[in-house]
Amino acid sequence: MFQPLLVRACLVLILLGKVAVAQEGFPPRPPEFSSVEVSAERAVTFRVFAPKAASVRLSSSDLPDLGFGGLEMKKSDAGVWEVTTGAVPAGAYRYSFNVDGLTVVDPRNSSTSESNMNTWSITTVPGSDQFDLKDVPHGVVAQVRYFSKTLNRFRRLHVYTPPGYEQGADRLPVLYLLHGAFDSDASWSTVGQAGQILDNLIAAGKAKPMVVVMPMGHTGPFSFGPGGGFEKQMQEFVEDFQKEIRPLVEQRYRVSPERRHRAIVGLSMGGAHTLDIAFQNIEDYSYVGVMSSGVFGIDRGEA
Amino acid sequence: MFQPLLVRACLVLILLGKVAVAQEGFPPRPPEFSSVEVSAERAVTFRVFAPKAASVRLSSSDLPDLGFGGLEMKKSDAGVWEVTTGAVPAGAYRYSFNVDGLTVVDPRNSSTSESNMNTWSITTVPGSDQFDLKDVPHGVVAQVRYFSKTLNRFRRLHVYTPPGYEQGADRLPVLYLLHGAFDSDASWSTVGQAGQILDNLIAAGKAKPMVVVMPMGHTGPFSFGPGGGFEKQMQEFVEDFQKEIRPLVEQRYRVSPERRHRAIVGLSMGGAHTLDIAFQNIEDYSYVGVMSSGVFGIDRGEA
Repeated sequence: MFQPLLVRACLVLILLGKVAVAQEGFPPRPPEFSSVEVSAERAVTFRVFAPKAASVRLSSSDLPDLGFGGLEMKKSDAGVWEVTTGAVPAGAYRYSFNVDGLTVVDPRNSSTSESNMNTWSITTVPGSDQFDLKDVPHGVVAQVRYFSKTLNRFRRLHVYTPPGYEQGADRLPVLYLLHGAFDSDASWSTVGQAGQILDNLIAAGKAKPMVVVMPMGHTGPFSFGPGGGFEKQMQEFVEDFQKEIRPLVEQRYRVSPERRHRAIVGLSMGGAHTLDIAFQNIEDYSYVGVMSSGVFGIDRGEA
Repeated sequence: MFQPLLVRACLVLILLGKVAVAQEGFPPRPPEFSSVEVSAERAVTFRVFAPKAASVRLSSSDLPDLGFGGLEMKKSDAGVWEVTTGAVPAGAYRYSFNVDGLTVVDPRNSSTSESNMNTWSITTVPGSDQFDLKDVPHGVVAQVRYFSKTLNRFRRLHVYTPPGYEQGADRLPVLYLLHGAFDSDASWSTVGQAGQILDNLIAAGKAKPMVVVMPMGHTGPFSFGPGGGFEKQMQEFVEDFQKEIRPLVEQRYRVSPERRHRAIVGLSMGGAHTLDIAFQNIEDYSYVGVMSSGVFGIDRGEA
């Protein structure tokens, strides 16, 4: 059609021209390698090409036994830095490279996990009945933007709806799932693999189809310690949750209005959020889950 | 509640301890700065802290007038490299830093745009009636995973559903929107701002509510030129589209079965996909859009 041979010949010439221009002024191509490789024993090898660097370390917020300083990587003659971890449990892991003090997400990995103030590369280690991506019916995770009148700014949340939701008509149980400090509303669906876990549990008959709401728990830059914003952000989030998020979810999604079908669960800082929200509205929640929380909610009279 | 003062005192001690541990072994904190700043004239200043680097350049696939080599950045005494672009049109821009040959996404920006083989930092320059995030009713963009029997692997697509979709019952027009070479199924919703544009157009009465399906056009690593995979990936994608994506969308979403409510549009490589799909099934599509395509579809007899 349309003289395909001629058209394709022109195309190839144009493309080759583009490639030639693209290579001009660039350093020679780095060697071929995979930046992440998982062995049969679930040891993970990480690699990055940084021929001019003096020191490269592997950082991760999730890999076990890494510590705060990360793992030292070793340089090959080709300029590729490499390190292999010990065997790790199946699951998802965030990582980055520290190249002479600079935080670098893996240039050869397109998958990332968004945190509150930065992003991580992410890789998965298969081998879990619960976490692995399987050929079962899949729900979807949607990114929802809303304007919060309470906070006077745009905010975002992630919502998991189970397989069959789009064609159904019934009202489903709802789980509000709150992330920990430094994470974001994307964390539960990326490193937390919440969607996949739900898909697998529902397919195995171990969980009922439900809507899972994953809001953004931070309201700005955050650090621990004095001036880090913990209490201010906690109050702002709880208000945003009550006045904006729950109404939005109940208006937009087919969720059950009954207490027995409403749960709230949080990790770490999200555990504190959970307790604060649940204790103020204990008549609203029939399940309250707190994971690794160091805080028992804030006292409104003092903060 | 629960002796809040005592609990909070303990918490502060624990957190301070954590911070002390975290800082051990790390280089001194970088200076305070914003990594992206947009002036009133829409000039954009980019900054990155890389005190040990010999050369840092700004790269972008979208910023005008950057060329393939990027923009040279200048180092301040504090180790922060900086460059300011000329005035740019409102919109979204992908960028990264080239630090001594290493591609680095902005360590201080959590927003990224996923491409086929890498990820970019992304920033938006406001000032467009069409692109800006506004306080209008918002649709959502969902990430949908599916197992492609055709390609024998897991694949992903993004789907925009308009405001009101979840509570509606009618079948909507559907637009299949195909990305260009090197991009991914995430590109139209991130750098393309498709969801926001649709929200704004629908709110202004300039577009009818519709479902927009954004599939993954690549089926593996890709480069232009011989051995880059263009024709193989094109055939694989077209087959995946026909046998998996369209059936999935028509089964899962409330889209109209009528030809007059089905459109397909693609950019560059996605334009070639569009033409190939549309010409083979011209009875299926009433609107066919091609943007910046250098290719007029492939000839099955030859490839």
